[in-house]
Amino acid sequence: MAIVVQKFGGSSCADAEKIRRCAERVLASRERGDGVAVVVSAMGKTTDRLIQLANECWNAWRDAPGGGEGGEVAKGGAAPDPGLPRRELDQLLATGEQQTIALMAMVLEAAGQRAVSYTGAQAGMVTDRNFSRARIAAIDGEELLADIRAGRVPVVAGFQGVTDEGDVTTLGRGGSDTTAVALAAALQQAGAGRVVAEIFTDVDGVYTADPRVVPRARKLDAISYEEMLEMATEGARVMHNRAVEFGARYKVPILVLHSQREAPGTWIVEEAPKMEGIAVAGLALKTKLGRVTLTKIPDAPGVAARIFAGLAEAGVVVDDIIQTVVGDGVATVAFTVEHSDLAAIKPVLEAILHNLGGGHATIDVGFSKVSAVGVGVRSHAGVAAAMFKALAEAGVNIANITTSEIKIGVLIDQADGEKAMQAVHRAFGLDRAV
Amino acid sequence: MAIVVQKFGGSSCADAEKIRRCAERVLASRERGDGVAVVVSAMGKTTDRLIQLANECWNAWRDAPGGGEGGEVAKGGAAPDPGLPRRELDQLLATGEQQTIALMAMVLEAAGQRAVSYTGAQAGMVTDRNFSRARIAAIDGEELLADIRAGRVPVVAGFQGVTDEGDVTTLGRGGSDTTAVALAAALQQAGAGRVVAEIFTDVDGVYTADPRVVPRARKLDAISYEEMLEMATEGARVMHNRAVEFGARYKVPILVLHSQREAPGTWIVEEAPKMEGIAVAGLALKTKLGRVTLTKIPDAPGVAARIFAGLAEAGVVVDDIIQTVVGDGVATVAFTVEHSDLAAIKPVLEAILHNLGGGHATIDVGFSKVSAVGVGVRSHAGVAAAMFKALAEAGVNIANITTSEIKIGVLIDQADGEKAMQAVHRAFGLDRAV
Repeated sequence: MAIVVQKFGGSSCADAEKIRRCAERVLASRERGDGVAVVVSAMGKTTDRLIQLANECWNAWRDAPGGGEGGEVAKGGAAPDPGLPRRELDQLLATGEQQTIALMAMVLEAAGQRAVSYTGAQAGMVTDRNFSRARIAAIDGEELLADIRAGRVPVVAGFQGVTDEGDVTTLGRGGSDTTAVALAAALQQAGAGRVVAEIFTDVDGVYTADPRVVPRARKLDAISYEEMLEMATEGARVMHNRAVEFGARYKVPILVLHSQREAPGTWIVEEAPKMEGIAVAGLALKTKLGRVTLTKIPDAPGVAARIFAGLAEAGVVVDDIIQTVVGDGVATVAFTVEHSDLAAIKPVLEAILHNLGGGHATIDVGFSKVSAVGVGVRSHAGVAAAMFKALAEAGVNIANITTSEIKIGVLIDQADGEKAMQAVHRAFGLDRAV
Repeated sequence: MAIVVQKFGGSSCADAEKIRRCAERVLASRERGDGVAVVVSAMGKTTDRLIQLANECWNAWRDAPGGGEGGEVAKGGAAPDPGLPRRELDQLLATGEQQTIALMAMVLEAAGQRAVSYTGAQAGMVTDRNFSRARIAAIDGEELLADIRAGRVPVVAGFQGVTDEGDVTTLGRGGSDTTAVALAAALQQAGAGRVVAEIFTDVDGVYTADPRVVPRARKLDAISYEEMLEMATEGARVMHNRAVEFGARYKVPILVLHSQREAPGTWIVEEAPKMEGIAVAGLALKTKLGRVTLTKIPDAPGVAARIFAGLAEAGVVVDDIIQTVVGDGVATVAFTVEHSDLAAIKPVLEAILHNLGGGHATIDVGFSKVSAVGVGVRSHAGVAAAMFKALAEAGVNIANITTSEIKIGVLIDQADGEKAMQAVHRAFGLDRAV
């Protein structure tokens, strides 16, 4: 019996009818003779509603009739108040997935398919104590595998786990995908043989580029874990990195496919077969980037560490970093950040430069980054050169360049984003029909 | 440090502001130097909404576009479909209380009061496997007592528990009251000394009679567990019997009080002090009763058992039973049932009489039952006589009489309900100001 873990996201489970349609997928796999485990997210906007409720409770004293400043309630946003006790927030948010597992189990049972729901705790999804962004430490696949072998469908709550002490945790963004892949890994380790993780989403699969930016973008049949990780880091929003990392570590084949359409999807696997001569799997685009350039800073050991530790403490997420030594004991460090982080960054930079005893900060805004990702980058000579040539011919000026083993990224003017993507997409032959 | 368990129901926790007002009660007790544990129900109509969702999921295949009969969805009712898998229903419903505990803990933390939320499972509220109406088998009060002694407020989910195997259960109607009293008992057993269970409700306390029926009804300062049990059984809706039974068994003093008003409430205790000469604590009224009379049934061992086993199997809740042997080897058995059960009862009765090989069933409708409850009933002579006299003087005809050790109940015409209540209330001196 082949075993598959099927993961359905929140918008696929938004009401009873949508849950029923997900259940049809489960039943179809069962009819083919496969064993199935299901992972689900919270229904529709449930998590947002719970976060809103949490913020209201956290601010209830301030907003109380006649109590304090008042009137300034944060409405509509899905971001939890940073002061909220994280253990309690996770205790609250975990109820969303717990509702969906029970409802999905009911729908399956109503169709005559025996099903058993499992919260993260019940499934033995043990995590560390980093509430709101916990990491999975261990999963016990034995009980779930016994269910599957007995013809039952275990329905597991995504996004959540439990600490050794029994506290409920959540895994943060992309958590349900991670649950699904981690569960497939646990079933494999429990002796299930090869277990595929099917991630049902609102896209057909992974594309060579975002079709809204590059109309000739094609869906990939397969992509490697490595490439998917770089694509996601560089802005492709198909799957969260932690899920792909889990897949890579435990060699779980991941299939990304559309929840409402019968289409083949994209496999994320160890080695994706490539067409001859195509070095690049796909392109990713990040927009609204700011570039921070620190000049004339002391060229001494530990300086970079102090700069980026200071930024990390302030919660600033730093993208690419470039450092060059310009001689005379001074260096230049440049890095990119998202526009939304720029406001927070200025006082932090001033304090850092003050502590370093020198240097100057320049902040430029309005950049985009085009990244070409592919395992071929490391074996094919001239990939970078071909990319730069294509950009030059399209009249796109390059501000910064960064590379990794399987990626070349260029920082360009935001206005050139689409043009650059289309030019590079064509230059690497990604437009070609397969 | 005195320790108190404070229980807040669903309507008291319907939104952030209401939860904040409940938290004020907790903080007031903390300021007095008391240790506090909190038990909460699901917010407002949450449980009803979840039941509705469960019914939709259970019927999703029938109601699917183009799928089966359709159109016949049960809407608006809070009764779960009888076919629903009970384990999954409990898994679902338990999320309601889990949300409230987290939110209550946030509100307390926001006020600077350290708090820790506990699901039933986390609190070690172990039950049997009777999903939807589980009974508490054990509670571990040690961890919660350690919290309280460290100045923290444990906030425990009412209405829910967990089986030995880790399955989530719910306790059925009145479950959160039961949780609160059982928790107080567990804390006592863990060495906390006397622990009071404060049940915050939407009434001031327990009355000598329903004030809507008897305008001169008075709030009681105290009532005994025994009396409260009889009052609840006979229709007074202040607290559920299982909570009171727990209180009686573990000698937990229960204080019923209004959640929004500063009023003294009613104590439910072992021995309630009584005014000299007043034998009765209060009156209860049940309406919409039907009377079933089975005549000429064989007077043989096991006949009653067969009758009532048959009714129980059909889910009919039988109230008072009276049997009289009329001689000649035939007996008369009469019992009362609620009007809502009458439709289900006829085919059951026919089958039972057919099996017994004889007998005749008469069903009369439109009865009410007035019950006078008090420990004084067993020590005061003539209580029954005084009640019958009062009814006779008020022109109320008595259809059936049933008594227990501390109760006298009379079945009367429904139209005479109010008149009878007021006459008996006056006759027993319950109108008197204390």
